[in-house]
Amino acid sequence: MEIISGSQIAQEIRQKVKERNEQEGISPCLAMILVGGQKEDLHYVGLKEKAAAATGGKSRLLHLPEDSSQQELMAKIAELNQDEQVDGILLQLPLPAALEEQTDEILAAICPDKDVDGFSLVNRGRMSGDNPGFISCAALACLEIIERFFPSLAGKKAVLVGDSFDLIIPLATIMIKRACQLSVLPSYEPGQASGADILVVEKGRAGIVQAEGLAPGVLIIDAGFYWGAGGVCGNVDRAALEGQGFEARLLPVPGGMGPILIAKLMENLAQAARQKRY
Amino acid sequence: MEIISGSQIAQEIRQKVKERNEQEGISPCLAMILVGGQKEDLHYVGLKEKAAAATGGKSRLLHLPEDSSQQELMAKIAELNQDEQVDGILLQLPLPAALEEQTDEILAAICPDKDVDGFSLVNRGRMSGDNPGFISCAALACLEIIERFFPSLAGKKAVLVGDSFDLIIPLATIMIKRACQLSVLPSYEPGQASGADILVVEKGRAGIVQAEGLAPGVLIIDAGFYWGAGGVCGNVDRAALEGQGFEARLLPVPGGMGPILIAKLMENLAQAARQKRY
Repeated sequence: MEIISGSQIAQEIRQKVKERNEQEGISPCLAMILVGGQKEDLHYVGLKEKAAAATGGKSRLLHLPEDSSQQELMAKIAELNQDEQVDGILLQLPLPAALEEQTDEILAAICPDKDVDGFSLVNRGRMSGDNPGFISCAALACLEIIERFFPSLAGKKAVLVGDSFDLIIPLATIMIKRACQLSVLPSYEPGQASGADILVVEKGRAGIVQAEGLAPGVLIIDAGFYWGAGGVCGNVDRAALEGQGFEARLLPVPGGMGPILIAKLMENLAQAARQKRY
Repeated sequence: MEIISGSQIAQEIRQKVKERNEQEGISPCLAMILVGGQKEDLHYVGLKEKAAAATGGKSRLLHLPEDSSQQELMAKIAELNQDEQVDGILLQLPLPAALEEQTDEILAAICPDKDVDGFSLVNRGRMSGDNPGFISCAALACLEIIERFFPSLAGKKAVLVGDSFDLIIPLATIMIKRACQLSVLPSYEPGQASGADILVVEKGRAGIVQAEGLAPGVLIIDAGFYWGAGGVCGNVDRAALEGQGFEARLLPVPGGMGPILIAKLMENLAQAARQKRY
């Protein structure tokens, strides 16, 4: 089984972004808004800060109190929309419980040209048209891997498992537009992905994906994330697949989509800075 | 085989909209913009005019010259956005060739609260979130039929064939969010929809859908439209299905989705008028 190194691919992407930023003389600035937040949110924000620095860019963290109101948050976003020093704006999700229902309305306030996460309603809407704007980095991370093995998606059999607005729905939309033979399932059960060329599993259970019911050669992208006794794991039972001598390619958890997602964010950020100049 | 009468269902929907409009004392006003256009565009616009009148509403047609510029069109939309007499705004598509590439940007100018077609980027983006706004009437027409036979979509096997932004992508998004077992195919070939509970065929060929490869009891929605020697027809070979004694339910072409789509537009229009009042 071929294990795809997300860390190495992320490193390649960051290197390309860095070189192009240098060539073009741009140092893109990412503004991140964190409302309240747990230790792990600060961890993710820290990874994005590092990635911005590693690609020749800058970042700012606006850490707002847990009990911020929607108005305060919208005012902060409006300020960043106007700020010419800021190329990209990112709102760390999920928001605190009191604001969670307003998430879409708050995301809608981010200027689409600075919406490097691709979460604003306008960019989500553009997905289904002929001129997509910024696309969610989770979907871009999957596409980055998929296109390395399948330069054309037409006629390929893809199975997506999940229902998220930031991964499954945008990826499904892209695949529909590229004439895939697409299946989308709510939760992974063995045997549901027989004959798939591409399998992306967001919803399942820790280790539920094994060789059973999969065709040899399948590209498996693990988009699950669980804390277990042995640390972080995903939906795929990597040890079982390797033990069974199953021929497949796997983007595993950990060390798979996570790093690539952040590298794709840096591509979007550089793109935002570039568009602003012209 | 059970043939579902789109005309009769449309009549039921219009009747309900009319009664509710009367009860609430509203007479919603639909503004339709037609740029250039063929005889058939005027036909569709005429059907919408009639439906507005039949549900106690009003309509206005703004017929702009074929060579209108994007600026002129955007200015007209801005005027209608401001006009308090107007509840819903509809831009008849497709636009003339010179404007076609700008379709998404022009649609984006329609105020989402008046966008009764659900085509603006914001409403298309809202689809994937928890608070959908106006949804495309073609998708709503399909859902109207589907929900009559399947009150819950969870676990149902649905096959959609096509890739349109106004039918297949929004319907797929709704089905993903309702935990369907969904397949989306680029073009219908017999045998690809085996075991489907629900089959919606937008892309195929005149008469390509016959009993072959379909499970008895399937609900088939024909979303194709072809001019043939014998008049209008769809993707489904209704005569063959009936001749084969195949047990299924069919929303046929003609007399199927078309009338329901326009009735759903009247529901959206009434909703826009109601939201404006509160």
